[in-house]
Amino acid sequence: MSSQAGPLTRLRRGHKELVLELLSKHGPLSRSSLGSLSGLSRTTLYEIVAELVANGAVVASLPEPAERKRGRPVEKLTLNPGAGQVIGIDFARRAVHVAAVNVAHDVIGTASAAHAAELTWPERVDLAGRLVHSLGDGSLDLGSLTAVGVGVVGPVFNPGDEATPARGVDGLPDLLHERFEVPVVTDNNTRLAALAEATWGAAAGSREMVYLRLSYGVGGGLVFGGSLHRGPQGLSGEFGHIKVVEDGKPCECGGTGCLETVASAGAVLDAYRAAGGTAEDVPALASALREGDATARDLLADVGARVGDVLAGLCNAVGPGLVVIGGELAATGPALLEPLEEALRARVMPLSRQWVDLRPATLGETGGALGAIALVLHESPVLSRYPMNAKSEEDS
Amino acid sequence: MSSQAGPLTRLRRGHKELVLELLSKHGPLSRSSLGSLSGLSRTTLYEIVAELVANGAVVASLPEPAERKRGRPVEKLTLNPGAGQVIGIDFARRAVHVAAVNVAHDVIGTASAAHAAELTWPERVDLAGRLVHSLGDGSLDLGSLTAVGVGVVGPVFNPGDEATPARGVDGLPDLLHERFEVPVVTDNNTRLAALAEATWGAAAGSREMVYLRLSYGVGGGLVFGGSLHRGPQGLSGEFGHIKVVEDGKPCECGGTGCLETVASAGAVLDAYRAAGGTAEDVPALASALREGDATARDLLADVGARVGDVLAGLCNAVGPGLVVIGGELAATGPALLEPLEEALRARVMPLSRQWVDLRPATLGETGGALGAIALVLHESPVLSRYPMNAKSEEDS
Repeated sequence: MSSQAGPLTRLRRGHKELVLELLSKHGPLSRSSLGSLSGLSRTTLYEIVAELVANGAVVASLPEPAERKRGRPVEKLTLNPGAGQVIGIDFARRAVHVAAVNVAHDVIGTASAAHAAELTWPERVDLAGRLVHSLGDGSLDLGSLTAVGVGVVGPVFNPGDEATPARGVDGLPDLLHERFEVPVVTDNNTRLAALAEATWGAAAGSREMVYLRLSYGVGGGLVFGGSLHRGPQGLSGEFGHIKVVEDGKPCECGGTGCLETVASAGAVLDAYRAAGGTAEDVPALASALREGDATARDLLADVGARVGDVLAGLCNAVGPGLVVIGGELAATGPALLEPLEEALRARVMPLSRQWVDLRPATLGETGGALGAIALVLHESPVLSRYPMNAKSEEDS
Repeated sequence: MSSQAGPLTRLRRGHKELVLELLSKHGPLSRSSLGSLSGLSRTTLYEIVAELVANGAVVASLPEPAERKRGRPVEKLTLNPGAGQVIGIDFARRAVHVAAVNVAHDVIGTASAAHAAELTWPERVDLAGRLVHSLGDGSLDLGSLTAVGVGVVGPVFNPGDEATPARGVDGLPDLLHERFEVPVVTDNNTRLAALAEATWGAAAGSREMVYLRLSYGVGGGLVFGGSLHRGPQGLSGEFGHIKVVEDGKPCECGGTGCLETVASAGAVLDAYRAAGGTAEDVPALASALREGDATARDLLADVGARVGDVLAGLCNAVGPGLVVIGGELAATGPALLEPLEEALRARVMPLSRQWVDLRPATLGETGGALGAIALVLHESPVLSRYPMNAKSEEDS
C-alpha cells in the first residue's frame, strides 16, 4: 500500500502529483515556470517531466506560429487528455461487468453479460475482453490503456497489490495481464462498489462513508479519509457476518445467525415464501409490495430494523455520517429503507443521531467495475489524484 | 486534519520530513549533500533548513578544528537532540495525568493527581502546570517545549485542531496556551489512550488496532494505517454505546441498553452487589475473585462474553487483528479476558478467527497523557515522524 512506501518513494510520488496538479490548475506551463511553482530542482523536475511524458500523462508542445513572440519558442507542458484510460472488470458470481473511464474522469461506457456459474476463468477473461472491445463505440483506445482494475467475489488478502491473486483465483492476474498487457490491481468487488459510490455515486466527493450491500450476499465497504479501509488482512466490510441471531441458521461463512442469514435477498425470499407469499426473485417481491401485500411489508420492516441495528452499532464505532445502501434488496425502496433508517437513528447514540445521513446507492450493477477503476486511479502512483485535478481545470 | 491539507502544504511537509529523515539516517550532512540526496532545489532546501533551524529541530555547526581539511570549513547540519520536547495532559473526570517525552522518544516522566469532580478549569490547568514542573528531576526544559497535547473526556468535534475546544470546555485551549505559550492540540482521552498503546504500549508499532477501555465509562479508539481514526464528526470509538440489551437500563448518553450499562466498572460492581457480593471498587472485586468467589467469576464471564460479542462484530466490520483491552476492569484479568476472547473468536467470521490477537493494555492511567504526546508527534507538521526517525539513527 502506498502509505507503507519509503519516504523517498512517497516524496517522488508527491513530486509527480504536484507537477500534474500544477499543470491541471495553471494549464500549459514552461519547464521554468513549473520549476518556480513547484520548488523542485532543475534536475529533479526534468527527470519527472521526462517520465510523465514517456508514460503519456503529459505532452510537450511548441506554441502555434501565430502565438510566437520574438526569440526562441519555449516548449510548454500540458496534461494529455487522451492519456490514462483505465478499464474496470467485476467478476461477479454469474456475470461479468466492465467499465472504461478516461483521464478526464468521463465514463466512456459500461457493459455486462450474465454467464453460468461454472464458467472457467479463461472463459470469463475472454468474455471480459469481448465486453471491453464493445465499449464506447470505438472511442476506447486500448493503446492508451494504463491499467486494469479488477473486482472479485470474496476476500482479497493484499488488495491493490498487482501480484496478489484473489483467494481461489490464482491464475486470474496472469490471465488478465496476458490479455491486456498492463498492470492489474484486484480487490473485493463489494468493497470496490463502496469506493465507486464514494467516487461517482451516492456519496460522490465524500471522504468518509459506510456502504452496505444487500444482495444474495451481504457485505460492504468503508471509505475513510477518501480511501478504502481494508483492515490488516483485507477482511474488512464483512457486515453480513455480524451475528444477529443467537443459535440462528447456518451461514455460508461457517458461522450461524449472521446478518446474511436474515437480510440477504435469498433469506428474505425464503422467509416470504415460508410465510405463504409467492415470489421467485426480488422484482417479484417488489411488485407484491406495490400491490399492498402486508406479508411482504411486515417482513421487510423486520429485516430493515435488523439491518438498522447493525448499522447503528457500526456508526457508534466508526463515527456517524454517510451510510449508503446498495444491492438488489435495496430496490424494494421505502418498505425496507424507512424501518431501516428508523432503527438506525433510534439505536445510534443520541449525540450522533443528527449526523446520520442514509442514502440509496445510485450505481447499480456496474458499481464494482467502476470501483475497480477508482482503485487504479487512487492507488497508481502516477495517476493518483490526476483525474480529480483534470476536472478542476474547468474551475480555474 | 493533515490529510485534508492542500497539495502544496502536503508537499512542503513531505520536504521537511525528508530532510529530517536524511539527517537521521546519514548523520551530519552539508547543505550540498542534503541537496543531492533530497533532490530539492537550492532555494527550497535553504528555506526548509532555515525553518528547521529556527524552530530548533536542526542545528548547524562547523567541524572541530582538528577535523578541518584545507579550504573554507563547511557547515554541517544535524538533528538537535534537545529539541522538540512535548508534554501531554489528560484531564480525566477526577484526576489530571501528565507526561513528557523528548525528541528521542524517551519518556522523561509521568505524574498524576486526583481532584474533586467540581474543580474549575483554571484550577485544573494550575494543577497540570505544577505536575509538569515536577517531572523529570529538572531535566524537562520548558524552553524547548514544542507543543502541548491534551486529552479530555467526551467527544471532540475537530480533534487535532489547535483552535477547537472540547465540547463544554470552551476556554481550555486558551488557558493552556496562556500557561505554556506553545500550540495546543486536543482530542478525546480514550481515543488518545488507544494511540498511546499503538505507539508505546501493547500494540507498539502496529498500524492497525482496536482499543477498548472498560472503566467507569466504556469507550475506545481505532488506529488505522498508523493514525487515529476519528470519523467525520470526531465521534468514533463509542463502543460503550453500542446497544446490547433490548429495552435495557438507561445510559448516560441518553440511550438505553448500551454496552456501558452492563460492562462499565460501575455496572459490574452494581450487579455484583445486587447478587449479594460486597465490593466498593474494582480492586475489591478482583480480590474476591482471587479468593474464588463464584458470583464474581460468573458475573465477569457474562460480561466478558457480552463484550466479546461486540468486539467480534467490530472485527467483522473493520477487519480482524490486534484488539487491546484497557481500563480498570481489565485488571480483573483472565476472569474477564478469557470468556471475552472465547466469545470474540466464536462470533467473528470463521475465516477471520486466526487473525484475532487479544492483548491487555500496558500503559495504565497515564495512557491518555502519553497519547496526547503521540497526537502532537503524529500531527504536528514539523515533528511528524521526527522522533521515529531519530530512533532509526541507531539502526544505520
